[in-house]
Order: sequence, then structure tokens, then C-alpha cells
Amino acid sequence: MRTTQYLLSTLKETPSDAEIISHQLMLRAGMIRKLASGLYTWLPTGLRVLRKVEKVVREEMNRAGAIEVSMPVVQPADLWQESGRWDQFGPELLRINDRHSRPFALGPTHEEVITELVRKEVSSYKQLPLNLYQVQTKFRDEVRPRFGVMRAREFLMKDAYSFHLSDECLEKTYQRMFEAYCRIFERLGLEFRPVLADTGSIGGSLSHEFHVLAESGEDAIAFASGSDYAANIEMAEAVAPETERAAPGEEMKLVDTPNAKTIEELVEQFGLAIEKTVKTLFVKATEESEAPLIALMVRGDHELNEVKAEKLANVAVPLTFATEEEIRAAVGAGPGSLGPVDLSLPVVVDRAVAVMSDFGAGANQDDKHYFGINWERDVALPEVADLRSVVEGDPSPDGQGTLSIKRGIEVGHIFQLGTKYSEAMKAGVLNEQGAHQVLNMGCYGVGVSRIVAAAIEQNHDDNGIIWSDGLAPFNVAVLPMNMHKSARVKEVADKLYTGLQDANVDVLFDDRKERPGVMFADMELIGVPHCLVIGERNLDEGVVEYKNRRTGEKQKIAIDEVQSFIQQQLA
Amino acid sequence: MRTTQYLLSTLKETPSDAEIISHQLMLRAGMIRKLASGLYTWLPTGLRVLRKVEKVVREEMNRAGAIEVSMPVVQPADLWQESGRWDQFGPELLRINDRHSRPFALGPTHEEVITELVRKEVSSYKQLPLNLYQVQTKFRDEVRPRFGVMRAREFLMKDAYSFHLSDECLEKTYQRMFEAYCRIFERLGLEFRPVLADTGSIGGSLSHEFHVLAESGEDAIAFASGSDYAANIEMAEAVAPETERAAPGEEMKLVDTPNAKTIEELVEQFGLAIEKTVKTLFVKATEESEAPLIALMVRGDHELNEVKAEKLANVAVPLTFATEEEIRAAVGAGPGSLGPVDLSLPVVVDRAVAVMSDFGAGANQDDKHYFGINWERDVALPEVADLRSVVEGDPSPDGQGTLSIKRGIEVGHIFQLGTKYSEAMKAGVLNEQGAHQVLNMGCYGVGVSRIVAAAIEQNHDDNGIIWSDGLAPFNVAVLPMNMHKSARVKEVADKLYTGLQDANVDVLFDDRKERPGVMFADMELIGVPHCLVIGERNLDEGVVEYKNRRTGEKQKIAIDEVQSFIQQQLA
Repeated sequence: MRTTQYLLSTLKETPSDAEIISHQLMLRAGMIRKLASGLYTWLPTGLRVLRKVEKVVREEMNRAGAIEVSMPVVQPADLWQESGRWDQFGPELLRINDRHSRPFALGPTHEEVITELVRKEVSSYKQLPLNLYQVQTKFRDEVRPRFGVMRAREFLMKDAYSFHLSDECLEKTYQRMFEAYCRIFERLGLEFRPVLADTGSIGGSLSHEFHVLAESGEDAIAFASGSDYAANIEMAEAVAPETERAAPGEEMKLVDTPNAKTIEELVEQFGLAIEKTVKTLFVKATEESEAPLIALMVRGDHELNEVKAEKLANVAVPLTFATEEEIRAAVGAGPGSLGPVDLSLPVVVDRAVAVMSDFGAGANQDDKHYFGINWERDVALPEVADLRSVVEGDPSPDGQGTLSIKRGIEVGHIFQLGTKYSEAMKAGVLNEQGAHQVLNMGCYGVGVSRIVAAAIEQNHDDNGIIWSDGLAPFNVAVLPMNMHKSARVKEVADKLYTGLQDANVDVLFDDRKERPGVMFADMELIGVPHCLVIGERNLDEGVVEYKNRRTGEKQKIAIDEVQSFIQQQLA
Repeated sequence: MRTTQYLLSTLKETPSDAEIISHQLMLRAGMIRKLASGLYTWLPTGLRVLRKVEKVVREEMNRAGAIEVSMPVVQPADLWQESGRWDQFGPELLRINDRHSRPFALGPTHEEVITELVRKEVSSYKQLPLNLYQVQTKFRDEVRPRFGVMRAREFLMKDAYSFHLSDECLEKTYQRMFEAYCRIFERLGLEFRPVLADTGSIGGSLSHEFHVLAESGEDAIAFASGSDYAANIEMAEAVAPETERAAPGEEMKLVDTPNAKTIEELVEQFGLAIEKTVKTLFVKATEESEAPLIALMVRGDHELNEVKAEKLANVAVPLTFATEEEIRAAVGAGPGSLGPVDLSLPVVVDRAVAVMSDFGAGANQDDKHYFGINWERDVALPEVADLRSVVEGDPSPDGQGTLSIKRGIEVGHIFQLGTKYSEAMKAGVLNEQGAHQVLNMGCYGVGVSRIVAAAIEQNHDDNGIIWSDGLAPFNVAVLPMNMHKSARVKEVADKLYTGLQDANVDVLFDDRKERPGVMFADMELIGVPHCLVIGERNLDEGVVEYKNRRTGEKQKIAIDEVQSFIQQQLA
């Protein structure tokens, strides 16, 4: 490709609305442009990278025995009603009506559509197992799209769905897909980790996310120091403290705390240790519950884990915090003064709270707290559960050392779904015994467009992107210096360009009338791994200069050897 | 690919709701499945063909100098408001609101989005010309989706947009794309014709459609007998009759015609020649017009051409026929008795009507017609225009012979748009003189998914689809006879399959425990061009049987020569 016949569209300035480095560099390198919030056009340079990711994903899916199909973006509501997700799924599911006022949705995922297909096409155990995948445009109406294509509304995803008669068969395919995912991310040159994950709105019994480790990651991942245990913090178990609850040492007393609405203020103003405080959060209960609200309590220095909270009986899903009005109506006090004493609502406390003694908490009266509270003596110990997020230094759930927390970007997610969809949608086959049997399902997603951004988060420097050869939009740049003044430079550059092209190398020939500095800066910005600089002075010696983008290393290569040298680099 | 690890999904019965042969065969061959009206899932066999079309289209676009990008499916309303099409486009534009109630549309075409991109990215004449394309999912909310993927709501399209400073430059790219389109359809083995076309809701000054000729085509195309003139009947000019109007020969008389509401009834009951009758149709006028309705008149045996009618001054677009109430309110008579005499509304008559004499038409009084009407003598000749569709035998507009009419399936459409979008959306650059200049645009579409169906319409027999090698889902089928009983058959079949796979041939190995008849029928149905039958009896002679799907020709090939024979066939 010649730059004069291409849309390079690099930017010198960093756009002010791009927060993370991959978003900034994708804009600056002319890879993407924003059309509207969460909607991006892929420019030629970005699309070239995206297609390379797609190709690797497709090859590994085929190798893993998955078969490619393509389902519509627009999905009829009735299938989502059948699975129950029409009501369960939040406003991320963009619901639309067609010209005849029939309801549809833009597909954020395709469990319903594939289950509908398989229940019609597959009737016998002989057709199983079956693993179908697609690489397709998805839409999620994110409340706050951000970070460019990292959390866009429209994005490219590979989603696969497998169907089985037995758990064993599902587990086997799950393992095969797990390995295929590892190969994908390895081939793309990413530093990644598979981690245990929550199954969320997709559902199922077991699930792993694949995370690209990066500071800017939106997810926190807990890693064990003594094993390869790794889990999304949403999922990582905070194990019960081994210490028993100490005996009461203080009397309980009611204290005026007019200026202490938060744990921080309480700690600061009254000299309490934060580990001796309890945070109380009210969430809505399910409609079937006796009380409208449920109180959840974690230690002052801990954070409520919302995913864990959603799994409690009687807690309404999605988790909804009570408003101040609702709290006042139920308790008679505001959010700054809540606690377990004299509370006539259901309470669930975290495991760490259950072993506390002599602690402080709101008195359920405005501007008052109790200090020196002790379970059983002052108030009965309520239901105990794992309610908090793990923190750095917590013991690992597998008993092997302690946990450390790192940030990750989720680029893949696989699920053992079991019969969630097949049961709701009556998808079954006749088994070997001639009896009807509901199908076992797995599903497997890769965020194809997100991988492009994640790769940049891991591979960049001050000058721009550093692509691996597998992902680079162009593998080689041919940079003639002042070609428009030197017939010799033009001739050598043309010849090198044509030779590399004929050898099927993705090569960019910068034939613009630009200063060398501009050309170098652009090629570093878009991250071309191998640069060939053709200048008068070097030609006197019969060489061109080669520069490696990643190592910065420069060397002179005899003109006749350039092509074989480059092919060696790319091999 | 082994059939036991594939989703063949062939059907024995023809689905009752499939009207045309390609739709029937795509369902029976397991290529597509309907998800909802106008929404189809592509099964593995269909997707393989679709991807082959895509590949050819992409290669020819790249060869023509177009650069690939990818724009979102979901488009913000404000761009369509800027171009004026938010209001002009009918309900085929599916309008949606996101969770924040902001208006968007599912993209049926991308002129607005690409113009928005180019006005931001391109600022100098040095960056021109520029030709950008994408292969992308489009949505049109068809009022009556039909014929499977031929007229679906969601479909795959290649759309390209070019930008220029001068008409000459646009014309040059238009010509280059015209030739690229010809190469695409040639490479895909289609019998096609480029034809002059109307520019419709896309707009512009010149346009060609590319039609695959087939009985089931929705479009009628007029071809000249003496030249290569071809035009969509929407567009083909009905030239003015060379004959002059004959002098009046009859008196005009008012006739009671209580049972003649249609031309056919009038002709039958009163023995009038149909060429001596005039059909009057009332359509709505634009809001700026003096009268609410306009009367359009064509000869009794001619059809009003709605596309031509829409181009008349004062006619409201889209063309809307007046209701009986509106006609009665304006004329005082119903639709069965309308004509030019005593009519106080604007009238436009077809060129053929202008030369009629002694003709019959409604009297604008219920149940009455005038016979023997003559222009000028009885009523002033109104405005004359080309209003009718050409018919078989009409003179060709280029003067070279007469027209014949054939059916075609539109698979491509290219436009010289001019400045329609760039002017409305203020897309311009600085030209060589440093002055601001509005861009000239072209746009170029290929119906990628429709091509698959069109190819089948042209290439099938009673047994199923007949693919060219370029389009076939699999090029070779390896069919072992009773493999599960013969180790020798299995061994030879395995070896042939592996050898062909290693040579990168798309080969399907039918390893099902099925009767030979079932295997042959399935392979003929899905249209595999080359079949290799491996049976005990032939192996005794050291041969396998080869069958060519298109010619039906069979021959015996020595086992050792099969691979090179197949590679020759595919070369």
C-alpha cells in the first residue's frame, strides 16, 4: 500500500476526551473514529488489525472443531421472553419495534437464537456434540460507554455455543475451548491469565474469564501467592476468619455523632479503629419477601461485593440500593446512622463482621451511634455470609498463600451453561435409549474488537503502538528519504516495495512528500514492526537502514539482502 | 470437513412457504434458516458460499484502489437530519431510541456516515481522490420481506463511496468501479447485464444497476435489439411517437356507461379499441401546488411508470394515489369515470396520449364517458411528458431497433451522486488554488448475500444447486460406499480426503452411516461440483468413480491419479 493512496489519518495531538492510552493511540494512529457515544468507525489501519485478530480467532475455533454460522443482529423478542431474559436483562438490551410494531432487540449475545436453531435442526444424539460459532457485530446499550472500543456499544465478538448430552461431554468441550482460548491469546502475543469468574446474566455453573493484565483494566483479579488460583474479585471467596470472636470487653453506649455520617468521619472524630466499625447498606428485597428492604453489613474497611450480594436469598436482582426516603420509612433514621441494634428488618452480615466484638455502628436514630456493640449480648447474631470483596493479603481460598490484586481487561469468557436455556426453551433430543433428553450447553465469547485495544494497553511506548508481527496493520514500512529529489532513492524504494509485496508481505510505502521526521513519527505511532530507510548516503555504501520498532535496534543491510532479511524477521 | 462433525441439515421436502427456487434450495440444502420475517441465520453450508462471494468482492475492490473501513450498523439521527433523509426516507429506515431516548437508525446505507467521516478526515485536494468501502450488515425494514435472502430485512452488503474534486475524476472512478463490478460477476460465473437505472432515494445524476438475468427477478429490464442499450424499465424512455396526431373523425358524445368502471369493461361493453381509450390516475400534489391533486393520463393499454411520475414538477414524493373520497371532493365523480374533459385540475398526459384522436375517457360524471374526444377541438392539450413504462416492441431510445423485456435480479448498483450529500453536509476541501470546494461523490453497492440466491436462480436442476468452483461450499465430496463394512474403502477414502485437505482443497468427507442414495442426493442438493465415489467393486480395478455435478459426466480415475486430476479440474 502507498500512503498517498491510503487513509493514514494520524493525529499529532492527543484527543482530550480519550482517558486511557489505547483509546488515545487508536485515535492518534488513525485506527478508529467516534461516530457517536460508544459507536466507532474502523479506519483502514484499525480494520487491518481487527481482521488479523479475527483470522486467528477463526483458525483456532476451526481447529477446536467449532463450525461457523452467522446469526442476525436483530432478534425477535419472543425468544427472549421464552428464556425469561426479556424481563431480566437490563436496559443494556436495546429493545426496538419494527414497522409493524413487533418487538425485537439488538443482540448483545445469542443464546436464545442458537437454542432456537438447535432445537429445530438437531433431533438425535447422533448429531451431538455440536459446537457452533460466529464472528459478529453485537450491541449493548452501555449506560456509560467509555475507553473507545474497550467498552463500546457496538462491537465485534466471537461467540460459540456447544450442545451435549452429558456433563462429561460438556466439560470436555469446555476444556478444549479453554485451550483454544489460551492459544488465541498466545498467538496474539498477549500477557493473559484465565481466571474463575461469575456467570452473571448469562448464567450457568462454571465460568472462566480470560484477562489481559493491564493497569487500565476495569476488572480486579485476585491471584494466590502459593498456587495458580486466580479469580475475578467479583467471584473470589473471602474465607471465614480463623479467629474466634473475642469476648465482650466494653459496655455498649449510645453516642451523639451529629457530624459523623460516614465511617471515615466516625473513625476520625471518635478515634475508633476502622476494623471496629460496621458499614450498613440497605438493598431492596424480592417481591415475595416479608420486608421491603434487607440490611447488609460489612466491616468499615471492607467493600460490599455486589455480585455476592445478588446471590443472597430474598435480595432483588439487579441489586438496588434503597433511597434515603425508603430507609427513613423503614428504619426511622437516615443512611448515616444505621446499624444492627434495634433493627426490625432482615440482616445479613459478612463473615468478618460475625467475629467482631466491641464495635461501633449506627443506632438507627439520626446523629447517634452505638459504640461497644457485642453480638449475642446486645443483639442476636444475624445470618452470616461471604459478602465482601477480597483485599490484598487475604488468605487464598485454596489455602495456598495470600491473595494479591491486579487489574485485568476481560477479553474472553467461557461458561458451562448447563440446561438454563435448553430447559426454558425445550431444546432436547432423543438419546441412545430413545428417550427425550434436555441438552447441556456451553458458551464461549471473545471480545474481538476489545482485543485490539487490550494489545495496545500492553504494548506501547511514548512514540506510539508496538505491534507484534501477528497483529501489525503493516509488517514493514519502506521509507524513502527525499524521494522526490533523488531518482536513485526512488528506484531502490520502488524495487524493495514491489519485491516485498510480491512476497505477500504487508508493506506500507510512504511515498508522501513529507520530511523524514514526519514519516518516522507516523510509522512509530502506528507501530509498524520493521522499518527500512532508504537514503542517498546509505545507498553510496550499497545499504539501507533497518530499524526494529520494538527493540529500537538499527542495522545496515545490503540492498540485495533486504528481502531475505525481512522474511527471516517475519518467519 | 467430515459430515459427522458438521451441520449438514439438508431437507427432503420443499418448505411450503418458499416461493422461488433459490429460496427453496437454500432451505433444503441447509444454507439458511428463517429466524423471523426477513431475518435469516446462515448455516455452515450457506456461510461458506457467502464468504466466497465476500472474498471475490473484497479482492476486486482492493484491485480497484478502494480502501476498506468498517462503519457502525447503528447511526445517529442527526446526520440523517442534516442530509434531509430522516424525513424523506420511508419506514424502511428503522428508527430506534437508545436508553437515553436519543434517536438512531439501523443503517440501510451509509452515505451520511461516510460523508461525516470524510469531512473530518480530509481537508486537502492532496488526499483526493479517495474511495472507501466496507462489507457490512445492513437493515431495511421491508414492508413485505420475501424470497429468503433475496429480499431480507437484514443482509450483507458491500458499499463503497468515492470522493473527488472534479466531475472528470468522479467519472474515471465510476468507470473503474463499473469494470470492477463486471469482473466480480464474471468471476462468480453469473450471467449478468449492467443497465441504466433510476437513482431513487440515494440520488445523483447517473446510475447503473447490475442485473443477474433470471425469470424470478423482481425487476424488468428493457434491452435494445440493435445495440447494447439496456435500462431498468423504471428508467427506460418511452420515446415520443413519430406519427402526428390524426385529424378528428368523430363527434364527441356523452355515453352512459353504468357498468364500465375499468378500461377492460369499457373496451368489452362498447367495442372500443383499447388504444383509443385513456386511463386517468389522480396523484397528490406537493404542498406548494395550487391544486391538491394532479391528473396523470396514459393510454388504456399502457402502464403509468411511477418513477417517471415522481419526477414531474408538483407531484408529491413518494407518489401517492388519491383516495376515492379525495377524488370525489375534487372532481365530483368516482375513479371509474375520470377524463380530461371539463376538468379543473392540472393534467399531465403521456406522449402517446398526446397523439391520440377520437378517443374515449371518463366524463368526470359518475357512470358516464365521452367517446370521440379530440385534443384542441374538445379540450386543450395539457402538459405532455414521458409517463408510461416501455413495452415489448417499443422503439429503443437510442434509435437502434426495438426493445425486449427480460426479468433481472439487481445485485449491484453504482451512482454518480455529485454533491447531494457533500453540499447538505458541508463536506469540502481546499483545492489547488486554496479555495474551498464542495466534494463530488460516487457510491457503489453490491448485494453480497443476494448474490448467493441469484447464483442459484441461474444454476440449478431438479436435483439441487449447481455451484461453480468459485462459489461452491465444498469443491469435492469424498463418498465412501458402505465404509463401515469395508476397511479397504475406509482406507482409500481417508487417504484421498487427507491428501486433498493437505492440498488446501475444500473437501467434504461423507463419513455418515448412510445409504449411497442418501449421500448422492445430499451432495447433488448442496451442489458439490466434483464427487469421488469409493466402492469395493471399483477398488478391485484400482480406480474410483468421478462424477461432475454440472455435466453429469462420470469417469473412472486410477487411485494414484485422483489428486492431480482434481487439482486439474479446479485449476
